[in-house]
Amino acid sequence: MLNTVRRSILQKPYKSSLDSICKACFATQLQEPSEPRVVTAVPGPNSLRLKEELNAIQNSSAVQLFVDYTKSVGNYLSDADGNVFLDIYSQISSIPLGYNHPALLKAASDPSNLATFVNRAALGILPPKDFADKLKTALLSIAPKGLTEVQTMACGSCSVENALKAACFWYQNRERKGAAPSAEDLQSCLNNMTPGAPKLSILSFKGGFHGRTFGALSCTHSKAIHKLDVPAFDWPIATYPVYKYPLNENAAENDKTDQKCLREVQELIDEFGRRGVPVAGLIIEPIQGEGGDNHGSAKFFQGLRKICTKNGVAFIVDEVQTGGGPTGRMWAHEHFNLDESPDIVTFSKKLQIGGFYYKNPFRPDQPYRIFNTWLGDASKLIFLEQVVKVMREQNLIENIAKTGDYMLKGLESLQNKYPNILLRARGKGTFCAIDFHTPELRDKAVKVLHKNGIHCGGSGAATLRVRTTLTFNNTHVDIFLKKFELSLKELN
Amino acid sequence: MLNTVRRSILQKPYKSSLDSICKACFATQLQEPSEPRVVTAVPGPNSLRLKEELNAIQNSSAVQLFVDYTKSVGNYLSDADGNVFLDIYSQISSIPLGYNHPALLKAASDPSNLATFVNRAALGILPPKDFADKLKTALLSIAPKGLTEVQTMACGSCSVENALKAACFWYQNRERKGAAPSAEDLQSCLNNMTPGAPKLSILSFKGGFHGRTFGALSCTHSKAIHKLDVPAFDWPIATYPVYKYPLNENAAENDKTDQKCLREVQELIDEFGRRGVPVAGLIIEPIQGEGGDNHGSAKFFQGLRKICTKNGVAFIVDEVQTGGGPTGRMWAHEHFNLDESPDIVTFSKKLQIGGFYYKNPFRPDQPYRIFNTWLGDASKLIFLEQVVKVMREQNLIENIAKTGDYMLKGLESLQNKYPNILLRARGKGTFCAIDFHTPELRDKAVKVLHKNGIHCGGSGAATLRVRTTLTFNNTHVDIFLKKFELSLKELN
Repeated sequence: MLNTVRRSILQKPYKSSLDSICKACFATQLQEPSEPRVVTAVPGPNSLRLKEELNAIQNSSAVQLFVDYTKSVGNYLSDADGNVFLDIYSQISSIPLGYNHPALLKAASDPSNLATFVNRAALGILPPKDFADKLKTALLSIAPKGLTEVQTMACGSCSVENALKAACFWYQNRERKGAAPSAEDLQSCLNNMTPGAPKLSILSFKGGFHGRTFGALSCTHSKAIHKLDVPAFDWPIATYPVYKYPLNENAAENDKTDQKCLREVQELIDEFGRRGVPVAGLIIEPIQGEGGDNHGSAKFFQGLRKICTKNGVAFIVDEVQTGGGPTGRMWAHEHFNLDESPDIVTFSKKLQIGGFYYKNPFRPDQPYRIFNTWLGDASKLIFLEQVVKVMREQNLIENIAKTGDYMLKGLESLQNKYPNILLRARGKGTFCAIDFHTPELRDKAVKVLHKNGIHCGGSGAATLRVRTTLTFNNTHVDIFLKKFELSLKELN
Repeated sequence: MLNTVRRSILQKPYKSSLDSICKACFATQLQEPSEPRVVTAVPGPNSLRLKEELNAIQNSSAVQLFVDYTKSVGNYLSDADGNVFLDIYSQISSIPLGYNHPALLKAASDPSNLATFVNRAALGILPPKDFADKLKTALLSIAPKGLTEVQTMACGSCSVENALKAACFWYQNRERKGAAPSAEDLQSCLNNMTPGAPKLSILSFKGGFHGRTFGALSCTHSKAIHKLDVPAFDWPIATYPVYKYPLNENAAENDKTDQKCLREVQELIDEFGRRGVPVAGLIIEPIQGEGGDNHGSAKFFQGLRKICTKNGVAFIVDEVQTGGGPTGRMWAHEHFNLDESPDIVTFSKKLQIGGFYYKNPFRPDQPYRIFNTWLGDASKLIFLEQVVKVMREQNLIENIAKTGDYMLKGLESLQNKYPNILLRARGKGTFCAIDFHTPELRDKAVKVLHKNGIHCGGSGAATLRVRTTLTFNNTHVDIFLKKFELSLKELN
């Protein structure tokens, strides 16, 4: 195809003419609806038909709705049947600013970004010339305190897998006292054998969720259906504290729970050390998102940090679901006032791209140890750069902290009004949850809420989890609470 | 942000006005250069400076060049120093049509695609309403014969991880004779214990590469640096046949190699069965891409297929690097004339999106068993749809078969002329390779080729691997061979 006529909109004179056109196009106004509108059963006939069609290609039984993303706006999701839902689930917490946000539409239609979209770079060997700049403005500018380096990945699972590897590299380098690996190390690892492929373990927590690939799945313990039939590493699993609510009335008992859980962590580290499978890293969610919205206390996390430091274990905080603002801080672990930062923090979802931040000692010492073809996707950094800019300009994280307080008060009030249905309202920012007395009741509530125009999802056995965008505000909260109460009345 | 003025370029009247503008913009002609042009040392001063800057953020030692993707065209890669290389590596074989292909630029700037780019869907629960259509036109239309279903994923590693899981599900469902899992299965798997997390194994091959996450890495055996310090499953590893070249002069010996390797596979399946870690699946590349371009024969693969069927082992062909046309067939395993199709075929790279095709018995029986938040990225299907269209319209795969024949003849001719440097020229399509007598010589050759304007990469210990786009033609081959000979003279 050499010398094929190749037409491009990348060139400067054309870029500027396109710019003026885009400005013209942006003149229309597409507004968020003022409330949900459900015009069919949920799912509607079109969603049901499309689900059957998809089921001929793959198991489509998890599909809830088919979505018209062109018509979805802000915090409102439009489906294939013309139904419009207030979305408090935001694609499993992965939409930062709402649907079709103007800043993202503009970035996606900016001709100067086109080359990044159509030429996906192998970022580890041939990064675009603005790669370091983009990492700085999009990722380092929001890095957790004390974590100075960052590695991109394509999704949450790969972020966790590679974070676990970074912990193992760090642990073994220390064991070798910085010496080069031996010939035996290099040969044995090729055959999956010790000493090169060492017997190390990662400590994780009951109810935790870190992904569904083999390494991440060995750290995941939230639901059997995720793990059934998959071989797993025999790694230590500790108890995540589950508190009595309201917290202020149960402080002494919850404090005992923390102490018990911390003792168990130390005991497991000791036990696996004795077994010859030492713990290289500990991975934990600041709030267990999939496992039922369990919130560990600041004291508990401060204790974990101390145990990790004392035992030479990497402290990995998995912020795939909590990172990027929904808890009212950029990173949920900021709520814990840790004396010393985590060693590694993973991210994905709201950040558009996966990856992990780390402290310098966790930098791999050689190339190709943390590597794959794409290492994420530079086009997602274009979006993240805009997300960060809008977050700052509009104080979205501070706002979400306030909106979250307002929401939690509303949930507590409903819980007091419907104590036979609801309990344990809890949350940070709009990362809120409330439990139902039985799983059946929760499942029914989710359906009734859908019918009443609220798109939402569950977590754990009997929890409703709220996962909003960062542009969710008190007016949205009012609508949600109104529809929630309507649904509770139907359940009663 | 409710009732915020939201401006959109998604709406119909504006779409049509944008269309006419884009047509105007596409009028310019951006042509592929007629040859490489190197104006600085490689890497040049800008690449070196940017590499140092990136090294403050992450280990940048694998970076070869910083690229100006806006200026890269077709099979030519432009770097940050104004150097222009003929690219025979194509981002580790992941660019299908060349840089800034008009069909992809057009798709990326089509306003009707914008919503897919800016609103990344959780494809497993809220797919866009055209999702089944896109899967059909982009993925099912090029499915390997006999594989009727497809699951998308974000990258090659996740594709492999989930393919291995699908094999384990299938194996255990058969063990349970279709009965539901027991309460003990469900409880034990949460703790990584048998019987729910069973002792199953996956058989892989020496020199194989399947990715760098924990499951995929346990099947990878190409280079120690990928595996060092990472805990691995003790799974069986068989010998991949490595033949004597030229093939036609060594047929009898190579046939013996095949028979020996097949016997070893059966022995390992028997051994791991006896050990109580039965083999649920066998994973293999049709051509070992990273491990040094080892080509298994059609007979070998036919033998493997028979062994898998006989032993009830899932036959997984990993086409992440070979799939999508570069071998002169859509799927490299088509070269093997198998009586029965593989059970699972993984893909990524040239297909823009990861995933795997599978036969219906490998469909997970319940939702959430093969699942994650994004399950790939619907925007990549927009590009793949265009790639498939262009492939068909321009007979790219047939062309690449012919171009590959022409290239291989040229490599053989150079090998005959420089027998003290080169040996074992081999290839299918433009998926070609040639060995050097020593690793040092190969490493030096890669550098000299870079200096002479050919962007290329190695594989295995002493191999140069050729991984072109599908638009590579005989004129490109001529330039490559001319520059290759020039480089060989410098090495001599």
